[in-house]
Amino acid sequence: MMRGLFITLDGCEGTGKTTQVELLNKYLKDRGINCINTREPGGIDISEQIREVILNKENTAMDSVTEAMLYAASRRQHMVERVIPALESGITVLCDRFIDASLVYQGYSRGIGIDEVMKINEPAIEGYMPDLTILLDIEPAVGLKRIHSNENREINRLDLEGIAFHEKVREGYMLIAKQYPQRIKTVDASGCIEDVHKKIIEVIENRLNSYEN
Amino acid sequence: MMRGLFITLDGCEGTGKTTQVELLNKYLKDRGINCINTREPGGIDISEQIREVILNKENTAMDSVTEAMLYAASRRQHMVERVIPALESGITVLCDRFIDASLVYQGYSRGIGIDEVMKINEPAIEGYMPDLTILLDIEPAVGLKRIHSNENREINRLDLEGIAFHEKVREGYMLIAKQYPQRIKTVDASGCIEDVHKKIIEVIENRLNSYEN
Repeated sequence: MMRGLFITLDGCEGTGKTTQVELLNKYLKDRGINCINTREPGGIDISEQIREVILNKENTAMDSVTEAMLYAASRRQHMVERVIPALESGITVLCDRFIDASLVYQGYSRGIGIDEVMKINEPAIEGYMPDLTILLDIEPAVGLKRIHSNENREINRLDLEGIAFHEKVREGYMLIAKQYPQRIKTVDASGCIEDVHKKIIEVIENRLNSYEN
Repeated sequence: MMRGLFITLDGCEGTGKTTQVELLNKYLKDRGINCINTREPGGIDISEQIREVILNKENTAMDSVTEAMLYAASRRQHMVERVIPALESGITVLCDRFIDASLVYQGYSRGIGIDEVMKINEPAIEGYMPDLTILLDIEPAVGLKRIHSNENREINRLDLEGIAFHEKVREGYMLIAKQYPQRIKTVDASGCIEDVHKKIIEVIENRLNSYEN
């Protein structure tokens, strides 16, 4: 049996990742591809417990490297319990944010270093890097405006950071897109949902054709 | 200011580590050396929370690599909050068990691999390897007998493992002692408390003299 494809969607706040993962899941299923979508910690008990430690507001003394290690440990368990078994059964896995978010937010924005965060994550992913990552790109000002006009979306801690923070995050994503040109494909997310979906499908079809031929 | 010495005591169950750390602490203080003793998680809030996740009996699905990563994250926070600040202020730190326990218990006994566990721990210790490790060695049968005759000691999960497990742990310690001959000094722990203490002092004095000359 062929291993399933591991596809991740990543990018700044307000790019519509969650919506696009759902649309893509439906598209792939209609195309006859067996797939699931997930996001970390994905309801995995142990991963959720680790997240609680990370997000506990009383843990103000938490060191950035400790934080990166805890995210990686949570990722590891999600990989072992959900992602790897699916991939190995031939199921395509769509994941809403993955390792690139750690590389950018902790490695680049917090300044630990992209390579250092990659090193911390290596034992977690055990060689299961995404086959394809769709990087949804948008001007941070536009992304934030979207978030604040979406009544259904819960505003999180990151959404409330200043524009300079989000500009830096975007810079980080651009940097890793250059570092992994084969894996990461950047898609302009400034259009409407349907337009962005079409652009994602184009990238996906190119990749699927390259496997099928 | 000179950095303090980082000294760890490690070894199988029932070698008397805790008692020997206390005696050594007293000895060094009497010799005019400013020192503290500690053990992981050492009362560090974040490290204790991480240990709770590791030791939670309901987490039967926990992957061995996740476990090793969590131990390393807990170690990191203990290093950042207690060990590194002390060392950098010129204080000698005595630590009851440290990275070698992870290398042996998770790397060797659980079979993740000693090098893999070292890699997982590298971001945690950030180059702060112990200057000297006293490896207390004893026949597992003797160590276990000691534990069971000590009414003051709480019996833990590891104490209840069979003799084959403890033989394997000892084997693991012997292996890493060979791997780090400069750092790890093996001390026969089969004698009485005072005898073992004397042997430890000998090793310590040798090392201190090598620094002082």
